[in-house]
Amino acid sequence: MFKIGALEKLIHELNRLPGVGPKTAQRLAYHILRTPDFSDRLQSALQQVQESVHPCVQCFSYTDEADLCRFCKDTSRRDDLVCVVEEPADILRVESSGVFRGRYHVLHGAISPLDNVGPENLRIRELIERVDAGLQQRSVSYLPHSDNEVAKTAPKINEIILALDPDLEGDTTVLYLAKTLVDKEVKITRSASGVPIGSDIDYVDDRTLGRALENRVEL
Amino acid sequence: MFKIGALEKLIHELNRLPGVGPKTAQRLAYHILRTPDFSDRLQSALQQVQESVHPCVQCFSYTDEADLCRFCKDTSRRDDLVCVVEEPADILRVESSGVFRGRYHVLHGAISPLDNVGPENLRIRELIERVDAGLQQRSVSYLPHSDNEVAKTAPKINEIILALDPDLEGDTTVLYLAKTLVDKEVKITRSASGVPIGSDIDYVDDRTLGRALENRVEL
Repeated sequence: MFKIGALEKLIHELNRLPGVGPKTAQRLAYHILRTPDFSDRLQSALQQVQESVHPCVQCFSYTDEADLCRFCKDTSRRDDLVCVVEEPADILRVESSGVFRGRYHVLHGAISPLDNVGPENLRIRELIERVDAGLQQRSVSYLPHSDNEVAKTAPKINEIILALDPDLEGDTTVLYLAKTLVDKEVKITRSASGVPIGSDIDYVDDRTLGRALENRVEL
Repeated sequence: MFKIGALEKLIHELNRLPGVGPKTAQRLAYHILRTPDFSDRLQSALQQVQESVHPCVQCFSYTDEADLCRFCKDTSRRDDLVCVVEEPADILRVESSGVFRGRYHVLHGAISPLDNVGPENLRIRELIERVDAGLQQRSVSYLPHSDNEVAKTAPKINEIILALDPDLEGDTTVLYLAKTLVDKEVKITRSASGVPIGSDIDYVDDRTLGRALENRVEL
C-alpha cells in the first residue's frame, strides 16, 4: 500500500479529533498539505494557546490572564451566586443570555460511567471547597483583623445554579451534586428544561414537553 | 464578550479547514485544550509532514522519498500508460481497485471557473510536457548514444486514462484535456461512469443511468 509515514501520522492525529473520521482526517491532511502557510499558522496558533491559555485557579474556565479569569476578577459581579457549567464554552452561552451576573464554576464534563467519567474526574471537589471556604469565612468573620487569607477572600455562596445539559449525564451530575451539597447552607437550583422559545409544541418531543409541564411556572 | 486572543486565533485557524464551521472549530479547540499531549502530538505531526512530504517531481503526488515517488520509481509498472487523477488521495482508490499497473499524474484539482481554478492553476502544463518529452524521445531515439538526459529517461506515453470525478468540474477538465492533447500521438480514455456494482438500477439517478446506457459495453 501507498503510505507516507509522516502523512499517516498526521491523519492519525486529526482522526483523534471529535467527529473526525478516517476519511475526513485524510481530506483535512491533504487540505493542510495543499494550502500554503496553513501548517505554519496552525502550528503557531497551537503553540500560542499552549503558552498562554490555562485554567482559572478559581472557576477552572480557560483564561490567558494571571491566576483569575476576567469573570472571577470582575468586581461588578455578585459573589453569592455561582453558575455551574459542564464546559468553558457554556459560559459564552450563559453570558450571551444577558441574565446572569454572578460567578462561574466549570466541571469540565459530566458524570458518565459509560465513558469512565466519575465525580473524581470532574472539578466537583473544588466546587465543594469553594462552598466550604465561603461558609468558613462567615463563621470567622466576627474575628477582628483576621490574617487568614482564604477567609478574607472567599465569599459566602448563597445559591448554586446548575446549568448542565438536560441529558442522562447532566441529570446524573445534578443528582450527585444535589446529594453532596445537601447539608451545606446553600440553595441549589437547576436551569429549567422546557419548550424552546419560538418553537412549536407540536414538534417538541414527549420528554421535553413532560418536563415543561412539570416545571410549569405560576403567573 | 469573553474572548481569549490565542484561543480565538486557534478557532479561526481550525475554521479554515474544509467542512469545519465556527461551532465545530470551537469544539475542536476546546478538545485540543482539554486533552493532554494533543497539541504537542499534532504540532509534531504537522512539522514532520512539512519537513518530509513534498510533491513528486514527475507525477506531483506526495512522497517522502527523494525526487520521485514510489509509483514513478517502480520498474515493474508500465511506462506507456498514465492515469490522470484530481487529488493524490485518488491514487489510493485506483490502486486498491487492483486493475491499474501504470504511472500516475496528479492535477491537484479540476477546472472550476466558479472557484477561480483555471487550467493554469493545475498540473496540466506538466502533463503536456510529459507527453511531449516521450514523443521527442522517440524522434531522437535513432541517434546513437544521445547525451540528452530527458530524451534518455522520458518514456513514450501511448494512453492517458482520465480518472476524474464525473461531475461538472471533472467533465470540464476532461473536455479541456481532450482538446489540448488532440494533436499529440496519444490515446485519451476516461474511466467509465455507470451504475455502481452491487447497487440497484431502481435507485440510480437519471443522469447516471443515461451515462451507463451511452457507455454500454458489447458482450
